[in-house]
Amino acid sequence: MAGTDSSQEIVFRPSPAIILCEPQLGENIGTTARAMANFGLWDLRLVNPRDGWPNERAIAAASRANHVIARVRVFATVEEAIADLTLVYATTARRRDLQKPVLGPDVAAQRLVGHIEGGRGAGLLFGRERWGLYNEEVALSDAIVTLPVEAAFASLNIAQAVLVLAYEWRRQSDLGAALPFTDTLAEPASKAELIGLFNHLEETLDRTGFFTAPDKRPTVVNNLRAMLSRGNFSAQEVRTLRGVISSIDRKHERPDPRRTPRKE
Amino acid sequence: MAGTDSSQEIVFRPSPAIILCEPQLGENIGTTARAMANFGLWDLRLVNPRDGWPNERAIAAASRANHVIARVRVFATVEEAIADLTLVYATTARRRDLQKPVLGPDVAAQRLVGHIEGGRGAGLLFGRERWGLYNEEVALSDAIVTLPVEAAFASLNIAQAVLVLAYEWRRQSDLGAALPFTDTLAEPASKAELIGLFNHLEETLDRTGFFTAPDKRPTVVNNLRAMLSRGNFSAQEVRTLRGVISSIDRKHERPDPRRTPRKE
Repeated sequence: MAGTDSSQEIVFRPSPAIILCEPQLGENIGTTARAMANFGLWDLRLVNPRDGWPNERAIAAASRANHVIARVRVFATVEEAIADLTLVYATTARRRDLQKPVLGPDVAAQRLVGHIEGGRGAGLLFGRERWGLYNEEVALSDAIVTLPVEAAFASLNIAQAVLVLAYEWRRQSDLGAALPFTDTLAEPASKAELIGLFNHLEETLDRTGFFTAPDKRPTVVNNLRAMLSRGNFSAQEVRTLRGVISSIDRKHERPDPRRTPRKE
Repeated sequence: MAGTDSSQEIVFRPSPAIILCEPQLGENIGTTARAMANFGLWDLRLVNPRDGWPNERAIAAASRANHVIARVRVFATVEEAIADLTLVYATTARRRDLQKPVLGPDVAAQRLVGHIEGGRGAGLLFGRERWGLYNEEVALSDAIVTLPVEAAFASLNIAQAVLVLAYEWRRQSDLGAALPFTDTLAEPASKAELIGLFNHLEETLDRTGFFTAPDKRPTVVNNLRAMLSRGNFSAQEVRTLRGVISSIDRKHERPDPRRTPRKE
């Protein structure tokens, strides 16, 4: 989906840190940075990335999320990476034998928003591509977050897991309701304009003999009016429709071209 | 995130169709199939894919979302691809000069769920990697869906846009609350067990002279009890804590090894 507005400035709002534990593929670091940028996250921390840092493949995969890539911090251990945070959730797709609460993304995001709005630091811990987080790493966290995935197909790419949680965070933060643009729907026509359309149509149909059964007329009229009300037509659209009716109506005034006048 | 449970059977529930208009890269078709599979979608339709179908790169990128890949249908036009549906939303990151409502993913998903639960067909239209959907294609839809992205970084990969909408659909469907696993938190200890712990600790602290200011004792005790209540300890954890207290306490009975007894 294209649509980036380069005239807009990147805003670095307080938001959750994303901590990737020993990421193996640079591509995943880059696509994670992009997913974060899409929803306004920017604090990306890497614990002991396999191919070191900086990583060309990560930069290429980030699709110009340079403001995230430029701020990446590398740590030797998870302990160091989360030292400054006061709330950390570990993401995992597997049940752990740990006495930890398990939250869905919506509840987790709700709590992250509350925590961060209180001026405190929070983060989300993500595991290795192949085998996720070790229990020792999950044990360092306040709760486990898992996604409501299809059990038969639960494996998400890291960047996609990050994307869902970044989206949920943004959705539940005060920014959540803010779409990049809203509709440009014209104001609906006044009821007077709409009733004008109804009368215009009904008079025309009276002339063209549309109402074959006079006793049914009130019902048919109500159905037509209900139909024409559902579209929330604007004043301009009502005028257009009346033009359409008149245009078709004129046909009745013209002689039918298929009929050649018979000689007596 | 690993965690797929292969013992589970794929379920084909009524769910929104995903329609990709003239997708350019096979990888994006494959990662879209994977994103769909993660959240239980399976009806993938391609309009005139640039590199034809089947596509090896798509199959490779699908990470074994074979049940989606196997059901892919290819159409020559968007009109044919959506012919059997009664509700279609067009996803776009750019404002269009069209008289269409603009919905966020949560509202859109809510309506999709209601429509589909009513036994009707619905679909989501996605545009080309480079320039999205044409206005004529958007015009065929019932509404526009856009994501609450950061305006300065609004460009999402197709599979990621699909992922967010698939997630929202699942979250709001009756499956939404269902996480693949829940916590295994043990039942909290009874209040009697907890009060046993309080008394044990407080008696010990009385002996070790922890309460230096007797008049402050009630307040300090209340603070300790509040602290120890917040963890929702299980009966086993309460027993463990009492063991910890006793273990430390015994130290006070033992002579301090650093002190050698003085001769009189």
